[in-house]
Amino acid sequence: MTETRPLSGVYCPALTPVNADLSLNTAAFIEHCRWLLDDGCHGLAVFGTTSEANSFSVDERMAALDALVEAGIAPTALLPGTGCCAITDTARLTAQAVALGCAGVLMLPPFYYKGMSEDGLFASFAETIERVGSDKLRVYLYHIPQVSGVGLPLALVERLVKAYPDTVVGLKDSSGDWSYTENLLKAIPGFGAFSGSEVFLLANLRAGGAGTISATTNVNARAIRDLYDNWTGDAAGAMQDGVTRRRELIQGFPLITGLKHIVAALRGDPSWRRTRPPLTPVDEAVGARLLGELAADGLVLGRQPEAASA
Amino acid sequence: MTETRPLSGVYCPALTPVNADLSLNTAAFIEHCRWLLDDGCHGLAVFGTTSEANSFSVDERMAALDALVEAGIAPTALLPGTGCCAITDTARLTAQAVALGCAGVLMLPPFYYKGMSEDGLFASFAETIERVGSDKLRVYLYHIPQVSGVGLPLALVERLVKAYPDTVVGLKDSSGDWSYTENLLKAIPGFGAFSGSEVFLLANLRAGGAGTISATTNVNARAIRDLYDNWTGDAAGAMQDGVTRRRELIQGFPLITGLKHIVAALRGDPSWRRTRPPLTPVDEAVGARLLGELAADGLVLGRQPEAASA
Repeated sequence: MTETRPLSGVYCPALTPVNADLSLNTAAFIEHCRWLLDDGCHGLAVFGTTSEANSFSVDERMAALDALVEAGIAPTALLPGTGCCAITDTARLTAQAVALGCAGVLMLPPFYYKGMSEDGLFASFAETIERVGSDKLRVYLYHIPQVSGVGLPLALVERLVKAYPDTVVGLKDSSGDWSYTENLLKAIPGFGAFSGSEVFLLANLRAGGAGTISATTNVNARAIRDLYDNWTGDAAGAMQDGVTRRRELIQGFPLITGLKHIVAALRGDPSWRRTRPPLTPVDEAVGARLLGELAADGLVLGRQPEAASA
Repeated sequence: MTETRPLSGVYCPALTPVNADLSLNTAAFIEHCRWLLDDGCHGLAVFGTTSEANSFSVDERMAALDALVEAGIAPTALLPGTGCCAITDTARLTAQAVALGCAGVLMLPPFYYKGMSEDGLFASFAETIERVGSDKLRVYLYHIPQVSGVGLPLALVERLVKAYPDTVVGLKDSSGDWSYTENLLKAIPGFGAFSGSEVFLLANLRAGGAGTISATTNVNARAIRDLYDNWTGDAAGAMQDGVTRRRELIQGFPLITGLKHIVAALRGDPSWRRTRPPLTPVDEAVGARLLGELAADGLVLGRQPEAASA
């Protein structure tokens, strides 16, 4: 966390595999993260919504992040989610990320109370940043109002950037409303705005944004990376159409559990279907239909991690 | 947690005072809890929504609960909130409550993801109950959809009661929709249904419910207790009108921060106004108006804990 310039590229909110006793499957998590980097991701936004982050305790998340770094995943490729309901928890997770040398953190606002004032949300982020107290910290705000129930008004983002210009350097917009990113980039040119879906990747890059942090990079990173690498080229429009079609196909099914079903098929490992409650594995029949539609769309199933990096 | 019969009475989701550094003010918390029991509460539903529970870490909550019991508050008067987003956290807090001999726990569903299936919510509660694995555990479900974003459908409650008849013995209905409690008590006669507001106390008791767990007992427990003790008497209707009028007066202001402002005035201790972000203290002018209206309604300010128990 030494560059003030925001990150850019294709980041994956890596799925989190669990053992039969619902504990985090660390070995499979490391393997999946390595494979994602091999498959085209610039980095990993571990512990996002897709990762079931909030279904794991702070201690579980810290142990898993330590394990990734110990396994040789470069901390500079890591952008862990750290936003909890309690600022003490958020500060603890964020301080660990800084200590490990992570590229930054993706920070939800406290999300239990709804309808909080701009002052209250500002104080939550400000208090956390002050507690961590490091000039190495890079915060990417996380705007996903339809899940968290707590959106980040543009005025709040501008106030945070003004107060912490070297720290609050970006945002992930998972609202599905492109106008939010568009207005953000107009208000704060050069801000590290990531689209929460690759459907908006080309539009985002053309507007000066940073890239995408997208759930579906768990199974389609290569094509999304190709679009990112070639967004100024003549084929960009067609490439966008291709990744959009696949995203919309996958989105037609339950997203997180559908992705776990796909990874189970890619790896030939049914244990990947497991989730922590309150999520439940996608119905087998629904999952089979998802895989059928993906195969028809050209996704090669049964691919192994080794094959991907060959 | 040895009686299968549900609790009944007037319970307070005690406010949580914080020090200038936003740490939990344990001494003031103990003092407030003692005063609430002196002021008429049968027990304390510490770490509820009013208590800013989710703004504190699991460790902070466990330390505060230990401190209450060490200070001599009877565990049989305690019904701590334990529901978190991660079942590992919920199980840890719940196991502590059982180990301390608490009367029961008030359990939110995991509340990050919205629109979860009945199977997923059932699995969350079931997995937690199985992990705690104690026949002493008594669970009161916590239905507050307008804050948590995750309501508890009646079919889910019935399924949990059927699966765990000696464990899932009650529910707090903070929805503000009386028909929810009404339907619940029709479907599960004798269920320990607490109204989240004393506005519904008389109706709840007449329908066979258990009492109230209400935010405003932080400042008006005595009158609510009087209604509870005399609900079959001729004066019950007038007593209900009185507590309803005061509740509606207080509810006309920001509820949690307004209550902290009132306690600050009752105690003569401005530090009680403090909150953890994302909550912010009520504006001084708004707070002054609230106190003015309460004084006109007969609330005696400047009362000290000592005076209350005299």
